[in-house]
Amino acid sequence: MNTDFASIITIGDELLIGQVVDTNSAWMAKELNKIGIPIRHRIAVGDVWDDIWYALDEESKHSKIIFITGGLGPTSDDITKPLLCKYFNGKLRLDEETFAHVKHLFINVLKRPMIDLNVRQAEVPDTCTVLRNDIGTAPGMMFEKEGKIFISLPGVPHEMKWIMSNVVLPMLPSKVKTTNIQHKTLLTAGIGESFLAELINEEEEALPSHIKLAFLPNSGMVRLRLTGSGSDEKLLSTEINRHFEALKKKVIDYLVIDEDLPLHNLIGRLLKDRGKTVSTAESCTGGYLAHLITSVPGASAYYRGSVISYDNSIKMSVLDVPESILDKFGAVSEETVILMAKKVNEIMHTDFSVAVSGIMGPDGGTVEKPVGKVWIAIANNEKVVTKSFDFRYNRERNIDLTAINALNMLRIAICG
Amino acid sequence: MNTDFASIITIGDELLIGQVVDTNSAWMAKELNKIGIPIRHRIAVGDVWDDIWYALDEESKHSKIIFITGGLGPTSDDITKPLLCKYFNGKLRLDEETFAHVKHLFINVLKRPMIDLNVRQAEVPDTCTVLRNDIGTAPGMMFEKEGKIFISLPGVPHEMKWIMSNVVLPMLPSKVKTTNIQHKTLLTAGIGESFLAELINEEEEALPSHIKLAFLPNSGMVRLRLTGSGSDEKLLSTEINRHFEALKKKVIDYLVIDEDLPLHNLIGRLLKDRGKTVSTAESCTGGYLAHLITSVPGASAYYRGSVISYDNSIKMSVLDVPESILDKFGAVSEETVILMAKKVNEIMHTDFSVAVSGIMGPDGGTVEKPVGKVWIAIANNEKVVTKSFDFRYNRERNIDLTAINALNMLRIAICG
Repeated sequence: MNTDFASIITIGDELLIGQVVDTNSAWMAKELNKIGIPIRHRIAVGDVWDDIWYALDEESKHSKIIFITGGLGPTSDDITKPLLCKYFNGKLRLDEETFAHVKHLFINVLKRPMIDLNVRQAEVPDTCTVLRNDIGTAPGMMFEKEGKIFISLPGVPHEMKWIMSNVVLPMLPSKVKTTNIQHKTLLTAGIGESFLAELINEEEEALPSHIKLAFLPNSGMVRLRLTGSGSDEKLLSTEINRHFEALKKKVIDYLVIDEDLPLHNLIGRLLKDRGKTVSTAESCTGGYLAHLITSVPGASAYYRGSVISYDNSIKMSVLDVPESILDKFGAVSEETVILMAKKVNEIMHTDFSVAVSGIMGPDGGTVEKPVGKVWIAIANNEKVVTKSFDFRYNRERNIDLTAINALNMLRIAICG
Repeated sequence: MNTDFASIITIGDELLIGQVVDTNSAWMAKELNKIGIPIRHRIAVGDVWDDIWYALDEESKHSKIIFITGGLGPTSDDITKPLLCKYFNGKLRLDEETFAHVKHLFINVLKRPMIDLNVRQAEVPDTCTVLRNDIGTAPGMMFEKEGKIFISLPGVPHEMKWIMSNVVLPMLPSKVKTTNIQHKTLLTAGIGESFLAELINEEEEALPSHIKLAFLPNSGMVRLRLTGSGSDEKLLSTEINRHFEALKKKVIDYLVIDEDLPLHNLIGRLLKDRGKTVSTAESCTGGYLAHLITSVPGASAYYRGSVISYDNSIKMSVLDVPESILDKFGAVSEETVILMAKKVNEIMHTDFSVAVSGIMGPDGGTVEKPVGKVWIAIANNEKVVTKSFDFRYNRERNIDLTAINALNMLRIAICG
């Protein structure tokens, strides 16, 4: 296929000692894919001169565009700029436009005096094209060498995203041969990866070589993704749709949604479409369920609020769970989550409510109720549906699985 | 330095189209660092035979140990196992021990019949050492070739972590030359990266070449990390400590903590040490603040609960904010957060409470109160401290910055 590929090189010791998780690469890959630039490699190297140099050599052998993020800060552990200057045979010069912008930031926004280090941020190799950064002090830089394009961006996520969205992505299609890449994703629940594979075996075998199927298990659910590439956009779209519909038909009993949409966004859409509202009463998830719901822009249209009754005294005082119920059945019980769900629905005047209570670990488990034991209740104004789970993983995963399963029960309740 | 380095290769198209963020690599890097194995490279490649093959060749040129994660699932998009089989000149054989374990999982845990695909998960190349996986069906595999060690692990995070913690990490020190790596990290707040760099310029210049300083800005705070390596563990420790103390002294006005500990863990420790409790009243952060606090194991010792009053009606009905206050000053106002903080402290009978209200975007901003405007109040039983912020970023970052700043104000209040 006659396509230009890209590589992403992320720079920083912190990536190699596990101090930070690299979210930049995933975001960049997604955006580049959208405009038809596939990624061949993503590589992380430390703040080591020879390793960065070698990575530039190596990636430019295989890819047309090489993205470099990180190492552009004002401090001395950031060696990317001097290295790029040398790699592309340049000399540092003060970029007047960048300098004016840095000055403006200090005078009008930060309202602090500039220091020498800040002035140096406006210096760039004279062999680069400056990619302006309206929201930070370190500009991006573009170099071209032997037919390859090198784009260096700051590692601070919101600055990198700003330069990509406003400067780089609009410019790229005129500089490289893009290919037509199409994805279609569906989300299933209640079936394991291998059973799903068996179920759709026939549909998978029928796929042509330019359409690939991927299984993506996450939080107890499995996404199926078809990815196709081809020169004829319309033909490809027709083909992918046909195979996607066949897949959908086969997994219909487990289908959550036929788009690449997180469950909490789907919940938002379902509630909005129906003009319904929801509230939550959380114990063990400690706000994570509410956080997922409210991470969606516009959530205030359907989400009223939550009572996080982490301590049993709050279950009694705010959610009116009688002490006798807690004594007899415990905080992690069907009886308790039913009362929590009913009460929060009443307090918040909502159409639906979700209540969760469980033992997330690492401590607090007993023989009868081990770590990972969870009760979930979904109430509307007519009835309450409950379900119990035994996750038995670590704290982080138990919290995640509890929230995702609660959202999935809510989805089923909303859809009736 | 005579040290064995490691490389991490992660496999999966989903990493190159940005559908998932790779958290595995960061975790692995951290654990390997702890036992003295530095990482030279992290690389992500797609489910492409030639690319994986090339990456194995390339990384084994530079590193002693090559970790490979992903692509071991039961489905046909997972090509890692057949590739490794060929790369190491093996033939697939059924591993009896793994097969017995997979059978046990299906009969006793999953309580479902096995299918062919599951049986195949117990097949391994006859040239590998099986690394057992007690919590999943795909075992890890170890190969040795020309003095290099290759370790292949499943991509499912909790399974990868289990095999690493229980099988790989205990075994490695006997197989490779580890080096002595030491880190010391401190966290600052209220000073930008470049000003911090200017402040500690002298201390930085005084560092010997085997001790490196890194600036790690995140969520409006900056961590400083010293990393040293050397053969004499005790001498290195003394040296690092001396430089670390000098740094600490210089940044004392901005120092949050002199360890690599997230702020929410620090809050937990401070409250526990003092036998104090806290509650929260969240509007704009929608549960994220509570989630951070309760993500710490044992949080129930000091965290009582929260009222998430996302809708104004809940601010009135549950938190007793008078309608007249909301009408006059608005939900995002000093007056409102003061009342929220006081009331939740009263309802939850806590020593401290935190209240936040703001406009996270992308919608809901006005000229007077633009997106990013936030009010935070911290109450104890004697007084309320308030502060307003103007973040003006995107929704995700505004939520994060609001929560982090609220926690930092809480920290200051607890410390008196």
